[in-house]
Amino acid sequence: MTTDERYMLQALAEARRAADAGEIPVGAVIVCDNTIVGRGHNLTETLNDVTAHAEMQAITAAAETLGGKYLRDCTLYVTLEPCLMCAGAIGWAQIPRIVIGASDPKRGYTSFIARPEGGASGATPFHPKATVTTGVLADECLELLRSFFQARR
Amino acid sequence: MTTDERYMLQALAEARRAADAGEIPVGAVIVCDNTIVGRGHNLTETLNDVTAHAEMQAITAAAETLGGKYLRDCTLYVTLEPCLMCAGAIGWAQIPRIVIGASDPKRGYTSFIARPEGGASGATPFHPKATVTTGVLADECLELLRSFFQARR
Repeated sequence: MTTDERYMLQALAEARRAADAGEIPVGAVIVCDNTIVGRGHNLTETLNDVTAHAEMQAITAAAETLGGKYLRDCTLYVTLEPCLMCAGAIGWAQIPRIVIGASDPKRGYTSFIARPEGGASGATPFHPKATVTTGVLADECLELLRSFFQARR
Repeated sequence: MTTDERYMLQALAEARRAADAGEIPVGAVIVCDNTIVGRGHNLTETLNDVTAHAEMQAITAAAETLGGKYLRDCTLYVTLEPCLMCAGAIGWAQIPRIVIGASDPKRGYTSFIARPEGGASGATPFHPKATVTTGVLADECLELLRSFFQARR
């Protein structure tokens, strides 16, 4: 098991907490120096707040842990491709590495951004030097979402 | 003075509160049935949190006031063009009308989105039927930002 998979399992554990609370199961952790400094899971229903996505909570938590709002030495692990809102927040926090589980073809940021990878003249929502890794434990991340929606039908 | 200008003045009052707190002066109000149901101003420094933009706070406040996370009968007034994060949040909240003061050519959502106005096959960060009005009291909104940055030099 790779380090990325190990931390994605932690993000999956957060996603399961969301499912247990009746929330669409998405989870995130933020890692700095091999330590988890922020965790979050989707709580939009519970908090009655569209901004309460897993990534937003993890970013706020990590900033509090580290005592600074820029997370320049951190890696974000999230079970589902971030939406535009979360991609924007990740950019503001200057997180240099983003590791994604499953893709979100409908609401993921890559469906909206003209040039999601940035480049010479292209805009990216993230820091220009940030790297993005996709597909880490994608099947597990997707399966959790699938079984959540199936149980709700 | 138009109704839009009247509410933009309220957003400007919020922006001034941000400036008084040493924050980049951006303010927002959310109006429902001719009543302000949410207010917010930029507090990223004070709260040490990149997600604490004016619009985010106004959305969270309005959802609390109205007791529901969807703001389908509301208009958002904001002194500066929303960033990607805030544009995403406005979309999630399904706010049908967005009124903007000054443009933000560097960080505004229109610099990032492939087709900010949506349309037949185009993605928009907002609800597909949402309307956007720009340039309301733009000079006043911009002047507040200019004088803030000038004083800091």
